[in-house]
Amino acid sequence: MTLDEAIAQALAHVEPITETERVPTLTASGRVLAEEILCPHDVPGFARAAMDGYAVRAADLAQASRDSPVTLRVIGAAAMGQDPRTLPAVGEGEALEISTGAPVPPGADAVVMVEQTARLSDHTVQIFSAVEVGDQVLAADSDFRRGELVFRAGHKLRAVDIGALLAMGISQIQALRRVRVGLISSGDELVEVGEPLRPGQVYQINGHILRQLVEAEGAVGELLGIVPDDPAKLRAAVEQAVRTYDMVLLSGGSSVGRRDWTFRIFQDLGEVLVHGIAIKPGRPTIFALIEGKPVIGLPGNPVSCVLVCEKFVRPVLARRGGVSVLLPSHKLAAAQLMQTVRSTVGREDFIAVRVRYDGGRLYAIPVAGHSNNISTLARADGILRVPPELEEIPQGAQVWVELL
Amino acid sequence: MTLDEAIAQALAHVEPITETERVPTLTASGRVLAEEILCPHDVPGFARAAMDGYAVRAADLAQASRDSPVTLRVIGAAAMGQDPRTLPAVGEGEALEISTGAPVPPGADAVVMVEQTARLSDHTVQIFSAVEVGDQVLAADSDFRRGELVFRAGHKLRAVDIGALLAMGISQIQALRRVRVGLISSGDELVEVGEPLRPGQVYQINGHILRQLVEAEGAVGELLGIVPDDPAKLRAAVEQAVRTYDMVLLSGGSSVGRRDWTFRIFQDLGEVLVHGIAIKPGRPTIFALIEGKPVIGLPGNPVSCVLVCEKFVRPVLARRGGVSVLLPSHKLAAAQLMQTVRSTVGREDFIAVRVRYDGGRLYAIPVAGHSNNISTLARADGILRVPPELEEIPQGAQVWVELL
Repeated sequence: MTLDEAIAQALAHVEPITETERVPTLTASGRVLAEEILCPHDVPGFARAAMDGYAVRAADLAQASRDSPVTLRVIGAAAMGQDPRTLPAVGEGEALEISTGAPVPPGADAVVMVEQTARLSDHTVQIFSAVEVGDQVLAADSDFRRGELVFRAGHKLRAVDIGALLAMGISQIQALRRVRVGLISSGDELVEVGEPLRPGQVYQINGHILRQLVEAEGAVGELLGIVPDDPAKLRAAVEQAVRTYDMVLLSGGSSVGRRDWTFRIFQDLGEVLVHGIAIKPGRPTIFALIEGKPVIGLPGNPVSCVLVCEKFVRPVLARRGGVSVLLPSHKLAAAQLMQTVRSTVGREDFIAVRVRYDGGRLYAIPVAGHSNNISTLARADGILRVPPELEEIPQGAQVWVELL
Repeated sequence: MTLDEAIAQALAHVEPITETERVPTLTASGRVLAEEILCPHDVPGFARAAMDGYAVRAADLAQASRDSPVTLRVIGAAAMGQDPRTLPAVGEGEALEISTGAPVPPGADAVVMVEQTARLSDHTVQIFSAVEVGDQVLAADSDFRRGELVFRAGHKLRAVDIGALLAMGISQIQALRRVRVGLISSGDELVEVGEPLRPGQVYQINGHILRQLVEAEGAVGELLGIVPDDPAKLRAAVEQAVRTYDMVLLSGGSSVGRRDWTFRIFQDLGEVLVHGIAIKPGRPTIFALIEGKPVIGLPGNPVSCVLVCEKFVRPVLARRGGVSVLLPSHKLAAAQLMQTVRSTVGREDFIAVRVRYDGGRLYAIPVAGHSNNISTLARADGILRVPPELEEIPQGAQVWVELL
């Protein structure tokens, strides 16, 4: 099964969570809207000047040009923040000085840029250019129109969307609650940092990396501890996690025995929908639905674990969290490949690379490292993808590197 | 001044903060290392099997092949997490069953994959392949070597780096403290959400957007309130902010008057190093050093403000925070441009675009919107850059969109 097929298969079965909660707009960045947002009133709510200049009646300036300027009577100035109802109406032959963002006074239908004017006295200004009705005027509903559908439910709010909500005066929104992800690490060799380490043991790292990756996506990750290599205990841990969490990630070992247990436990408790993906590293990935919840068994090798999380868990998590449109979200850098990389047709390969600047250009150098080793990623700046149809990418090729 | 020149000019003058603090590794993601990290001991610290199979002496299998397998005596099994000192030594003609990640016993110098073996009985196994010394063995220092320089000071820690630190048993690191950014919004027309809005007024949004953007970079942003359109008050606010914060962002209006005040205040209090950048939107950007601290005046238009933050403030902030290597950090999507966009040679243009999926391809559609309007960004999925040397990008062109 290719990566795209595995994602499609998983997404076809994952149901978004439905519980919602009220969230202050100021803290809603990264949250998924549970409601559609209709604009409650016109924004900005009054016509504003788009440039510094003079609010005028376009008809008065029909003949104005550099050679035959039109002189208008200046009846005052519109200050920023001023209530437009307190402004004098602009009559025939009149103009009101105006700053960018200030309200356009009644009677005026255009703003002429200050660069097209010469102030003759306190009370007169010369205008060197004709204007069209509406020139340099932002209408009262130019930002958002009352009743307009601004965001659909399922939209994941970005920083600029928080700005848009605030511009509409919306101080709270209804959001889907954050997805709670239970993270199980399994393996007799694993020890938590801070505990004494005997020869033969290694520190548990995958759970901590996964927690950060899922939290970067707006979920809440919780480490459920290290489960020993015992099928009964692993099964109990999965059952318990499925009861408590919206989604479960199990980072197991890479031995065949452990993988087989994981598969049998998932099959026993629910339905296995993906069993192996044609990617390297990351092949032994298992996706199951248990009590309607996505449960994913990830390889124990840290490099594989990170890649499967980025490539497979991320879209599943987004769907579970109610995100309606999944856009790619990788940070890419263009670079020249410094060493030929080889792959196998029909399999997608992901290769850790360092990225170096030299003379304003970026160069990608494959990292020699085993996927057992977290050092392979710690020494890398990013990941190079070799698509399934390629046998190699030659030295010197221009490539896109997904930055870590 | 081009954007690149403006960034170079700013970076040449910005000093990284120097105060450091002790941070638990588990919460250090996004923090900048204030120390170099030398690996305290070999990781994993013992030789491990890279595959399931049998730990063997390579010399015993020199003649082994599919046609003439070699039979070895199985003297036990190495379990995951087992202390290698408790394992029996593998002698001539002997093998020890071993799982991926389990310690390689004394005497053995290679692991033969289980696929190349047939277990004949509890005590014997047939091997169908010769192996080289070291095959499928991860050396005791294969992940990290004792004394190795793993991270330099100035490295910004990513999720995988947290994993690397934990793998080495490093539970705390010395980090530069987070950069504290003071955010001033200025304008008589601005009102905070939650307060009553009169006609002529608009809600303050830029400060809130900026706070999120700088916090996404690992800094702490603090809103210092709305300062009225009064040069003395603005000057006092800037002075006060410079005393308290490591960096100050001033999101002012776009009127010429306000810009002039800002320039004069910055010039008066410190040294203006950038005054205007050849980008659209975002031209009226001012960068100054006041009491050694970077102070940036951003345009009041929200679109300009966001763009200048992404393009100019971000690298300055990273440098101020002590990040030694600045890599691009944009999320890019490849798309086909659906409508010709025009620009001016010598100026870099940034155009808001929507991105749509259709038949597995992405299409970018320019958003018709004014940079005065936050709706321009709220309706967009990303930003299309038109480089200074281009007059237009034609409809149908393949483009990279920086996702918002």
